[in-house]
Amino acid sequence: MDPKLGRMMLKEWVAIESDSVQPVPRFRRELFRMMAVAADTLQRLGARVTSVDMGSQQLPDGQSLPIPPVILAELGNDPTKGTVCFYGHLDVQPADQGDGWLTDPYVLTEVDGKLYGRGATDNKGPVLAWINAVSAFRALEQDLPVNIKFIIEGMEEAGSVALEELVEKEKNRFFSGVDYIVISDNLWISQRKPAITYGTRGNSYFTVEVKCRDQDFHSGTFGGILHEPMADLVALLGSLVDSSGHILVPGIYDEVAPLTEEEINTYKAIHLDLEEYRNSSRVEKFLFDTKEEILMHLWRYPSLSIHGIEGAFDEPGAKTVIPGQVIGKFSIRLVPHMNVSVVEKQVTRHLEDVFSTRNSSNKMVVSMTLGLHPWIANINDTQYLAAKRAIRTVFGTEPDMIRDGSTIPIAKMFQEIVHKSVVLIPLGAVDDGEHSQNEKINRWNYIEGTKLFAAFFLEMAQLH
Amino acid sequence: MDPKLGRMMLKEWVAIESDSVQPVPRFRRELFRMMAVAADTLQRLGARVTSVDMGSQQLPDGQSLPIPPVILAELGNDPTKGTVCFYGHLDVQPADQGDGWLTDPYVLTEVDGKLYGRGATDNKGPVLAWINAVSAFRALEQDLPVNIKFIIEGMEEAGSVALEELVEKEKNRFFSGVDYIVISDNLWISQRKPAITYGTRGNSYFTVEVKCRDQDFHSGTFGGILHEPMADLVALLGSLVDSSGHILVPGIYDEVAPLTEEEINTYKAIHLDLEEYRNSSRVEKFLFDTKEEILMHLWRYPSLSIHGIEGAFDEPGAKTVIPGQVIGKFSIRLVPHMNVSVVEKQVTRHLEDVFSTRNSSNKMVVSMTLGLHPWIANINDTQYLAAKRAIRTVFGTEPDMIRDGSTIPIAKMFQEIVHKSVVLIPLGAVDDGEHSQNEKINRWNYIEGTKLFAAFFLEMAQLH
Repeated sequence: MDPKLGRMMLKEWVAIESDSVQPVPRFRRELFRMMAVAADTLQRLGARVTSVDMGSQQLPDGQSLPIPPVILAELGNDPTKGTVCFYGHLDVQPADQGDGWLTDPYVLTEVDGKLYGRGATDNKGPVLAWINAVSAFRALEQDLPVNIKFIIEGMEEAGSVALEELVEKEKNRFFSGVDYIVISDNLWISQRKPAITYGTRGNSYFTVEVKCRDQDFHSGTFGGILHEPMADLVALLGSLVDSSGHILVPGIYDEVAPLTEEEINTYKAIHLDLEEYRNSSRVEKFLFDTKEEILMHLWRYPSLSIHGIEGAFDEPGAKTVIPGQVIGKFSIRLVPHMNVSVVEKQVTRHLEDVFSTRNSSNKMVVSMTLGLHPWIANINDTQYLAAKRAIRTVFGTEPDMIRDGSTIPIAKMFQEIVHKSVVLIPLGAVDDGEHSQNEKINRWNYIEGTKLFAAFFLEMAQLH
Repeated sequence: MDPKLGRMMLKEWVAIESDSVQPVPRFRRELFRMMAVAADTLQRLGARVTSVDMGSQQLPDGQSLPIPPVILAELGNDPTKGTVCFYGHLDVQPADQGDGWLTDPYVLTEVDGKLYGRGATDNKGPVLAWINAVSAFRALEQDLPVNIKFIIEGMEEAGSVALEELVEKEKNRFFSGVDYIVISDNLWISQRKPAITYGTRGNSYFTVEVKCRDQDFHSGTFGGILHEPMADLVALLGSLVDSSGHILVPGIYDEVAPLTEEEINTYKAIHLDLEEYRNSSRVEKFLFDTKEEILMHLWRYPSLSIHGIEGAFDEPGAKTVIPGQVIGKFSIRLVPHMNVSVVEKQVTRHLEDVFSTRNSSNKMVVSMTLGLHPWIANINDTQYLAAKRAIRTVFGTEPDMIRDGSTIPIAKMFQEIVHKSVVLIPLGAVDDGEHSQNEKINRWNYIEGTKLFAAFFLEMAQLH
């Protein structure tokens, strides 16, 4: 595999503005183009490719948008070999150069060995690393040590719309011969030391709308006599979490798995230079001072983040407006053994309680717009051992055995529907900045990651 | 004056996107075009017109933008006549059709006798009504009963940048012969009954910035270990005002003028159908149940409105972001005898106190970006009596003697610098919706307002 060719392909894929978060036709067209380019790449690799029509999506405002196809691809079906299925996604988070990107987010730009671009690490780079690994065997005219399947979607950042139904339907067809499922959609917790991930948090995303009327007011003409929606909303959002990060929704910690001595020991075994982590994150001070507390609050305790407000004044300058209708957005990261529906009820009841104390004449509506389960795996499965050996071969070190604070709901979904072992083998460094401005993947990670996947194929062949 | 021509001119003026709030070159160019068109109109009316270069404006981000010229115009200088100076502004608040406008905000559109368009009532319509009144005398080949001066600016919505310096400089030149100053930049408090305004609230506009770093975070990767700026900001904004509209900043009510029996009687004399007002405002319920309380909380008590947040997620959809740096915006409407600098200190100290209780590692910066004084006049001045008579002539009724909850800082400024009587003669109906979506002026108000100004000229000639 020629590294130059690998970078060219990443450049081509990053250039496609496959934003699945902003529900507008322009980005949907880009998503369809992205999936077509990927299908073509896999076909040229010799895979049998099916692009599954996913129908369309009804948005809350009544608009209907087509869902990009999911790619199912198969390469080899030798019954004496194991079959590994790789999951990836090719949609990305929104990116706008005005938000603080130093380079055009849709033009892959190399600076000091870092490849900047939206989707570079989440998740176009890792998908291409897997494809590059397969290409390497092809280029060397070697047989693939394993049968390989791909399931590639274009709606991950929007909650993998309709994917679960497809996996359910393909459970006894596409997935029937699959032994192992590999996902590479998260990051290491270090800049240089690789990791294997055996658990992720879930996520429940809420909107709370407060409405006086569907038109704004002038703050001179109406200020002083209204129950202002922003005052209500700020009070509602302010009731969710305290300044130490503790969630104030009653009952929210009831189902969180109790902490055992054994579990604490796994955190102690992980190398994490807190000072370096804090510096690379460019954060003045974290909420906690020890490595163990930091890891536990990222992995095994829930967290609540307030994302923003829709409908209020959000531009530079000074507009003297009383917004008539505002929508607050926040989400709770869920951990084993929290239940999405229970959390939905707890949050709704809490906000209703807080709102009722205000005697506001406004209307409040709480909605959970996404509900994604947490996931945790058995780290003694064959492919966990194979991945460890491959890491030893390529990087000469033991991996960090980690969990991820982010939500990779398909991990949990695959385990529940397909009942096969799922492993997460991240390629990106801790400072890659997925979901934020100046997302990047290091050139080194992209190349070594390609080697890691190739070594993993060989180890799987031995262990199977 | 032909009503058709009057409407054509309003259409032409509304079509110019003279937004002074959004500090971008495109809108600045439109502002310059707007001022040139107005200068040309006044010249064709026979006025001696000067367009005063106002230099440029330094923005907080370092950017420099040119300020549109102020028009000073004079029509007649007969020493036996009184001289009335009319102030108006031709800049507008931001308007975007996506925000809920039913028609293009920059295309004047008549529906059921209502002329919809940004600036139709605030303040392009009233400026044109004054010009139309002068044109009427010209068309009838009658001498103007008074000498007329115009001062027209293009930065009112952005705080009348640099206007005060100009008025100070012109105090003994342009303003030396001026006897009375008329402003028409507010609204009636009824749909059909005219009003004269003798006081306005001031405004102090604040930003409170909370910063962790200049880049956003992914809520999966960092949620649980950060002092999140949005949590800090929501707590800060939530500490400002309670659910009954009472401002919680310590000391803020200390300088508010005490309420007298006589003042209460002026509110009692005003006709205000609360039910109709509530319906036309499309508000379910106000904070207060009596006419007197409503009027007092709009005119003689301060109010605090939260306008929005810059830097957070403000679009449709679900983005799992922890904003790294957010700016909350709110303002306090000031009343006699509150002092802008005292309020600035009180608000800053209060926010610093609240922030310090949070032990947050983020940085907080409070700034007062606008500080505009409240204003109150003597309602026994000659021109108040002339305006009352003109209203009786044109509308056959006594005006409501009102104050305005909005800020018209130049009223206070003219009184302080020029030391001449200032009156506000609004033309627009209570439901015109200045500063909000679907701003309009009624065709009837625009035409009768033109007549009112003509009758006012005649009354002034008699009383002077």
